[in-house]
Amino acid sequence: MSGALMTALAMRRAMADGTLTAEVAVRRALEHIAEREPVIHAWECIDAEGAMRAARDLDARGRPGLLGGVPIGVKDLIATAGLPTRYGSPIYQGFRPAADAACVARARAAGAVVIGKTVTTEFAYFTPGPTANPCNPDHTPGGSSSGSAAAVADGMVPIAFGTQTAGSLIRPASFCGVFAIKPSFGSVSLAGVKPFSPSLDTVGWFARSADDLELMRCAMEQAAFAPLQPPDARALRLGVCRTHEWPAADAGGSAAFEEALKKAGAAGIRLRDIDWPAEMAGLVEAQKTVMAREAAQSLAPEWRDHRERLSAALVALLEMGRACADHTYQQALDQAAAARRLLPPLMRDVDALLVPAAPGEAPAGLGATGDPVFNRLWTLLGVPCVNVPGLQGPQGLPIGMQLIGHVRQERNLLAVASRLHRALTED
Amino acid sequence: MSGALMTALAMRRAMADGTLTAEVAVRRALEHIAEREPVIHAWECIDAEGAMRAARDLDARGRPGLLGGVPIGVKDLIATAGLPTRYGSPIYQGFRPAADAACVARARAAGAVVIGKTVTTEFAYFTPGPTANPCNPDHTPGGSSSGSAAAVADGMVPIAFGTQTAGSLIRPASFCGVFAIKPSFGSVSLAGVKPFSPSLDTVGWFARSADDLELMRCAMEQAAFAPLQPPDARALRLGVCRTHEWPAADAGGSAAFEEALKKAGAAGIRLRDIDWPAEMAGLVEAQKTVMAREAAQSLAPEWRDHRERLSAALVALLEMGRACADHTYQQALDQAAAARRLLPPLMRDVDALLVPAAPGEAPAGLGATGDPVFNRLWTLLGVPCVNVPGLQGPQGLPIGMQLIGHVRQERNLLAVASRLHRALTED
Repeated sequence: MSGALMTALAMRRAMADGTLTAEVAVRRALEHIAEREPVIHAWECIDAEGAMRAARDLDARGRPGLLGGVPIGVKDLIATAGLPTRYGSPIYQGFRPAADAACVARARAAGAVVIGKTVTTEFAYFTPGPTANPCNPDHTPGGSSSGSAAAVADGMVPIAFGTQTAGSLIRPASFCGVFAIKPSFGSVSLAGVKPFSPSLDTVGWFARSADDLELMRCAMEQAAFAPLQPPDARALRLGVCRTHEWPAADAGGSAAFEEALKKAGAAGIRLRDIDWPAEMAGLVEAQKTVMAREAAQSLAPEWRDHRERLSAALVALLEMGRACADHTYQQALDQAAAARRLLPPLMRDVDALLVPAAPGEAPAGLGATGDPVFNRLWTLLGVPCVNVPGLQGPQGLPIGMQLIGHVRQERNLLAVASRLHRALTED
Repeated sequence: MSGALMTALAMRRAMADGTLTAEVAVRRALEHIAEREPVIHAWECIDAEGAMRAARDLDARGRPGLLGGVPIGVKDLIATAGLPTRYGSPIYQGFRPAADAACVARARAAGAVVIGKTVTTEFAYFTPGPTANPCNPDHTPGGSSSGSAAAVADGMVPIAFGTQTAGSLIRPASFCGVFAIKPSFGSVSLAGVKPFSPSLDTVGWFARSADDLELMRCAMEQAAFAPLQPPDARALRLGVCRTHEWPAADAGGSAAFEEALKKAGAAGIRLRDIDWPAEMAGLVEAQKTVMAREAAQSLAPEWRDHRERLSAALVALLEMGRACADHTYQQALDQAAAARRLLPPLMRDVDALLVPAAPGEAPAGLGATGDPVFNRLWTLLGVPCVNVPGLQGPQGLPIGMQLIGHVRQERNLLAVASRLHRALTED
């Protein structure tokens, strides 16, 4: 088994046992990338030399920190010192930020080794890069965090950063069959992340286990790490919520959701249907309004100075945002605030909500990244979301389940995710 | 009268009349700066050539836009394409951003000519640059938007951008005797502004009239401009609110506040004492908690990679922020949210609150920028604030009055400010 295919926790254990060094872990990651990258195209750029140097330095210092010696990927929407940062746009070809983003600095401070930058769609909107889905390279990996999802799914790195404004973490995680967390809004600093819609933008990450997600979360919080303690299935209560977007699920997607309920129930998890209030119906549209209006503000420089180098899809969004009246925007924000107050009582008696992560399997073709319809609502509400992999659709591609947690209760949510994953995958 | 000493509105009128061109306006600004800068030190860098080129280009195109041909200054915490951006720190010496900040792009799109970058304290915290107060160069201009306040007060440019996280717009405006607005939280995009405390950071600007503040506000909103229509004094109701911080006012500051009440009353403005709830008492501390904790996150890269180049004051704040427990931070955020809900009923029957802008006149010496004690609360509450100049303290230095408006009602607040200014300055 190559080093890079191990989880970060397994790497840390092997390093503690003396059977692995950071140098070997990073070299194996680079070898695996060299082999698979011509098919997957997960990377915008690779810093082989810098990563090897950092690994050797960490080995010499005894690999301190929660992530000491663990290779990671960073979505190319997130600034890195010493590495180009292009935001998925030709406008920023060759741009080198003066400093790391805050999340990268905290990961490096915890000993992570940045292997390189992963492909993002243009400014994390819909126009895709070349990345293919490792489960079937004729299908999209989803987006906008396309490269990070694919790199983790392919075993190139155990953990990679992404961001979500609509569905850019949970949807590609579902399509690629990996875990991902979108933490509570505001819990991870956005300093150094290209702004798109500041009321929605959230830093998150992909991994191949819930424990690895928790490991990075602790690195972000500069907290001590302890392995998750998944609750006993019979102590777990999940609210089942198909939301008003349920008709958007395809046949494979709805079948997988019903299968998940069956497996969860068989494992002893208590499931409870949540009466989903009518007030939640307009929230997907509200999310679109907020996103369009704020993107038109955030990307004002690119609109003014480089309009001809923006994709048609992005220009259309920015035009929509520029045309959006102030009161329409305010109404959308007010609607979101009201819904945020509505949610806690609905979730009072459950540990998390179980909801679809995506309409179904990853669509065929690399020209589009799929529909974030099952993610927009939760991003607008600012609640923590986790994708739990484990199920497959009719074409043999992954379909994830999304868990929605209580605000700022990420550790609890990840423990639930770990338990649900076991229920979905055990026979 | 030199072109630069005119307000932006007067410049626009003179340009419409054919008695002024953008080229002349910019040249006069540059000449005035060349004469006064050796005393004031308002500028981090000047782009004389670029500004003259932009001015000629605007003249050739008929000076379109609300600010067509108006020279402005930009605080060096705010990114500008083609001009270095140092954030007031030696760490970023020579750094050139790839793009303008969103506010700069919108100002340029409205025809503003960026003359250069104005001095900021280190990352907009307390360690000052060399800027002197134009009213008395032995006194601080305040901070962190030191250069922008001084440049506008000295008549170098009619309008300049600043930012406020604690009291970085209103306090220097009070010390230098100019108007300034800190708009409602979230109303102007922070894209391209170095993040310090994302729950508090706000872009604003200085000018020498309330109408000029409104002009830039319309440019930010891409809205049409109409001159303010100050209400009749007798139709105006101001809530008088000394806040729990009142003991921090010095003798000159409290005398000026009483003088303002007297003059406002004499002009016919109806004044009403606001019962200030006990729940508001801890908010200055809550603001400090939020600011410290979030700064420690935002400046994680500088902490990790350049700690020895941070000032002792900033290191102390970041250490405080790193030591701040999660529940303490959450409590501060919750306290702020509760206070934000408390405020609208308190302001139901008034057009604005009249409160102190600063403890008194600008302190002597350039080693410190004064105390934002009268600003922290309002920044935390996210309400729009305007400094209204017009009064003087015992040393002949300016003392401003602060008006607090209803959220997102900036135009109304500026009309009130215009009327109050007349009351404070007419005999």
